[in-house]
Amino acid sequence: MEHQFTPSHYYTTMGPHEPVLRVGNGDTIVTTTVDARGFDQHRRQITPRGNPQTGPFYVEDCEPGDTLVVEINEVRPNRRYGFCRSAVAPNVVDPDYVGELPQTEQAEWDVDVDADTATLIAPESKLGRLSIPLEPMLGCFGVAAARGQAISTATSAEHGGNMDYRGFVAGTTVHFPVFEPGALFFLGDGHAAQGDGEIVGSGVEISMDVRVTLRVIRKKYIGWPRAVNEDWIMTVGNARPLDQAVQHATTEMLRWLQTDYGLDAVGANLLLSQCVRYDLGNIFDPAYTMVCKLNRMWLPE
Amino acid sequence: MEHQFTPSHYYTTMGPHEPVLRVGNGDTIVTTTVDARGFDQHRRQITPRGNPQTGPFYVEDCEPGDTLVVEINEVRPNRRYGFCRSAVAPNVVDPDYVGELPQTEQAEWDVDVDADTATLIAPESKLGRLSIPLEPMLGCFGVAAARGQAISTATSAEHGGNMDYRGFVAGTTVHFPVFEPGALFFLGDGHAAQGDGEIVGSGVEISMDVRVTLRVIRKKYIGWPRAVNEDWIMTVGNARPLDQAVQHATTEMLRWLQTDYGLDAVGANLLLSQCVRYDLGNIFDPAYTMVCKLNRMWLPE
Amino acid sequence: MEHQFTPSHYYTTMGPHEPVLRVGNGDTIVTTTVDARGFDQHRRQITPRGNPQTGPFYVEDCEPGDTLVVEINEVRPNRRYGFCRSAVAPNVVDPDYVGELPQTEQAEWDVDVDADTATLIAPESKLGRLSIPLEPMLGCFGVAAARGQAISTATSAEHGGNMDYRGFVAGTTVHFPVFEPGALFFLGDGHAAQGDGEIVGSGVEISMDVRVTLRVIRKKYIGWPRAVNEDWIMTVGNARPLDQAVQHATTEMLRWLQTDYGLDAVGANLLLSQCVRYDLGNIFDPAYTMVCKLNRMWLPE
Amino acid sequence: MEHQFTPSHYYTTMGPHEPVLRVGNGDTIVTTTVDARGFDQHRRQITPRGNPQTGPFYVEDCEPGDTLVVEINEVRPNRRYGFCRSAVAPNVVDPDYVGELPQTEQAEWDVDVDADTATLIAPESKLGRLSIPLEPMLGCFGVAAARGQAISTATSAEHGGNMDYRGFVAGTTVHFPVFEPGALFFLGDGHAAQGDGEIVGSGVEISMDVRVTLRVIRKKYIGWPRAVNEDWIMTVGNARPLDQAVQHATTEMLRWLQTDYGLDAVGANLLLSQCVRYDLGNIFDPAYTMVCKLNRMWLPE
Repeated sequence: MEHQFTPSHYYTTMGPHEPVLRVGNGDTIVTTTVDARGFDQHRRQITPRGNPQTGPFYVEDCEPGDTLVVEINEVRPNRRYGFCRSAVAPNVVDPDYVGELPQTEQAEWDVDVDADTATLIAPESKLGRLSIPLEPMLGCFGVAAARGQAISTATSAEHGGNMDYRGFVAGTTVHFPVFEPGALFFLGDGHAAQGDGEIVGSGVEISMDVRVTLRVIRKKYIGWPRAVNEDWIMTVGNARPLDQAVQHATTEMLRWLQTDYGLDAVGANLLLSQCVRYDLGNIFDPAYTMVCKLNRMWLPE
Repeated sequence: MEHQFTPSHYYTTMGPHEPVLRVGNGDTIVTTTVDARGFDQHRRQITPRGNPQTGPFYVEDCEPGDTLVVEINEVRPNRRYGFCRSAVAPNVVDPDYVGELPQTEQAEWDVDVDADTATLIAPESKLGRLSIPLEPMLGCFGVAAARGQAISTATSAEHGGNMDYRGFVAGTTVHFPVFEPGALFFLGDGHAAQGDGEIVGSGVEISMDVRVTLRVIRKKYIGWPRAVNEDWIMTVGNARPLDQAVQHATTEMLRWLQTDYGLDAVGANLLLSQCVRYDLGNIFDPAYTMVCKLNRMWLPE
Repeated sequence: MEHQFTPSHYYTTMGPHEPVLRVGNGDTIVTTTVDARGFDQHRRQITPRGNPQTGPFYVEDCEPGDTLVVEINEVRPNRRYGFCRSAVAPNVVDPDYVGELPQTEQAEWDVDVDADTATLIAPESKLGRLSIPLEPMLGCFGVAAARGQAISTATSAEHGGNMDYRGFVAGTTVHFPVFEPGALFFLGDGHAAQGDGEIVGSGVEISMDVRVTLRVIRKKYIGWPRAVNEDWIMTVGNARPLDQAVQHATTEMLRWLQTDYGLDAVGANLLLSQCVRYDLGNIFDPAYTMVCKLNRMWLPE
Repeated sequence: MEHQFTPSHYYTTMGPHEPVLRVGNGDTIVTTTVDARGFDQHRRQITPRGNPQTGPFYVEDCEPGDTLVVEINEVRPNRRYGFCRSAVAPNVVDPDYVGELPQTEQAEWDVDVDADTATLIAPESKLGRLSIPLEPMLGCFGVAAARGQAISTATSAEHGGNMDYRGFVAGTTVHFPVFEPGALFFLGDGHAAQGDGEIVGSGVEISMDVRVTLRVIRKKYIGWPRAVNEDWIMTVGNARPLDQAVQHATTEMLRWLQTDYGLDAVGANLLLSQCVRYDLGNIFDPAYTMVCKLNRMWLPE
């Protein structure tokens, strides 16, 4: 079943909030997200800033200990105006270089979905009118947090959240551990494009039209978000320092290879040894994100 | 001028050691490296283990404050036997998962340069005889360390060292800051292939035939290793935690864009904001490695 | 005014929950806390485990942007049975030492308030019946979290939480930034004694009789918890890695010295340079705690 | 035997350098150290800056795998002029606070050994002429580094080095693992007083008269520096982040309690659980220092 959902309220924490819609296992949701500052497709601010989320969506027959599978069918900017910050964040450069960073200001991008480009309009600099290809993605999405918490959409943890990973584009399927009845799925913070690490604290921030399909795997426990696309399987660790994010993601991948792909411990370790890849998600927020990847060509069967 | 050099002595620290050969600016060196445990192309151990280095090579007219440019012309396994460890290192998984790692043992690979593959031979596991493409690289190379130090080839710093980055293959040119007269270039620790992070503590370790060309840029100060290949410019940070490696690499990239590519601070920051990429080098050694990359298509001019 | 409050409900997150009592500015609360696993003075489990908190207490005329001042008047074990874990946590030892840690089990202590001692009863080991002096403290307390979050009592942040600092004993006054109307003060997780770092993941866990006095400083913004006792002023940073906790605490102390003690930037920096001290709170939980201290003898005036 | 030694040459790396003197097991050395910038008791610069070290001293019958025991008999400033930096280092404050730090300049102290005080003379600030008690200590000392390395005296590792721990005063005995024949003991970088963490990058830097007694424990392997004073036993971890320094120090203490104090694993873990203390050494240098301590009153026997 497909649900057309027009949000009227947004959340900036991911917790056990009142659902905005109940959907069935396998249902599809077509909806919109506002940008990180709460502006919609008409550039009207309709909710306070801070990665406001559409949702939560309650998925029927989904309980703590299950896994929620989110197929990202479409993520498409629904206006032309995108923005980002203009300076690398102080925590991403050497402490004694912080004084040489420029003042941050709002940089503006013209996002042209038909041409598939984002073009830098302001501020003026020697870079000029840089034009880059679109890679529309969801910066912040996931389920209600563990232990009954309500976690800010400025950060991330086992439940997902503000991971800002360039791989979360249409065509990727993401698995989340379920902590609350109905899972309570949230989504928002779309980026028309983004560099690794979101090192200025923003991608090309924009409102989106989004289409996702939600499915439940009953009694399937996972520790951290997992994802699959055409070529890769991926696990996501969210923590500081980055070393710990790597530990979470690598441990989750070792577990996955043994529980779902028929490998023993030695086989799983050896497979990762020479074939593992890592991507950097966010290195701006309170929790950083690292993604552990394995090309599906190396999987058994 | 091209020098054929047959090493007779190896070092496991990178410091102000007696040069094994003096070469001119622009000269090429054709030589060999032993594997990480000191075994040569005939599988004879000819020097103690610990990433023994060929060199150091003294480059004429090269002084502290200059930059040494190392063009990697060829890195080619010169035997069929490769090996790696079989278990992910304890520092790369969650502390409470350490007990579930298998015992590490020596895994063996058949490295076939003609077929361009490395095939896992032992130990037995459910993974079977995995066969992966070769990506021959140098795990540990660089110049004599800063401040008159002699730094172990188990680790890395501003002078390079054991970075274990998959991008250091033939066709890549690497720049090092010079700290000692003659730069004193070292190289070793070849891998026939390697996963990101070198998370088991080894790639497919093997002896190599290597060809490099060395050039000097006089009075050119750089803070950290930089590299260029056909598509990318790259900067390398070596430190713990990984966050600090990111800081070093990002700061070096911001400096490079402003000193060599004509960008102002705002332009350099904005260019990285949506176009930067990061790769993980080593997350096993005392210092971890992160690489900050920018596709050359985005560079001014 | 003094309130005798008998809790009937406990929370394991610190967020905008329904207050259990409203008190006035300057009022005193006399109440009890259960132990970390939800057991009361009669060793009955009356609420689920996980540092259950008494409260929240709503303080009249207290708004976001104010400071809540908590005077700890009394913290007194109200039963004889205390417990802790018997093994250092895996994240506190070298990754390659994790395998040598003993299995953790419940260690038991006889807590004798009259004798002022805690005596180890079980398990058997070559340590025998170690007897240590009591230092009754609150492990977890603070206010509702920032940004409308509900944060687990397993961790800590700007609002306080599970800091496990040995200095939070009777006679210490703690200041918290206020994020919700009424501040919403919580308290729990008493320890009869504790080592620095809470490295086994627990102090001598016990239920307590507690007496606190709450006051409001209107329109006083602070960034992190601050504390004062007879000899010291203290600031608290909660984050990972520990380096970042040090950064938060030190920054807060520099600010405090300049806003409240009449020092200029140079004077505040110079004073810390040779007089600063640091204490370790928790190095077990998701966020670690470091305390920056300055002896009051060095304060101006 | 007691050796009066007047240094004529200094080193800024700790490695296998030519010994300046050979001493016997149990001998005492009476010598001097220059300040961190190479100035002697007459305020003449006699060697380049960077924690120049007196030594190395070769200890007869001392081999790799042994332990060198250094009894610090006396550390006494031998001039009145001390100095420090005036601003907290950028890596010790929040990244977004770096811009609010004052410019660092040289602060000057009058060090009066008879009065037992250091008094701040310059620069002018609202702090005025702060006068603090002397706690003369050695900031940087230890033995030649592991693996044949020569490590800068700006940093620290298993061999000791620039640990900047306030506990390294007269009356403390420090144990170092031996990596080179003769151990090769170095000492320097005296501080008349120092705050925890050496957060401005310097204590009250000064030249010293020093008296140490060196002894060898044959075939005694230790992993990290250990120390003993009248009240405490201590282990030292040097690494980044601080979390890893804690891991090294704690692991070393667990080992010590089991090998030398007759405890089993459970007993050693339980003893630390409620009795361990931690002190912060350096949080300025490339490697940070944490000290794990246990009061000797809790030791068996």
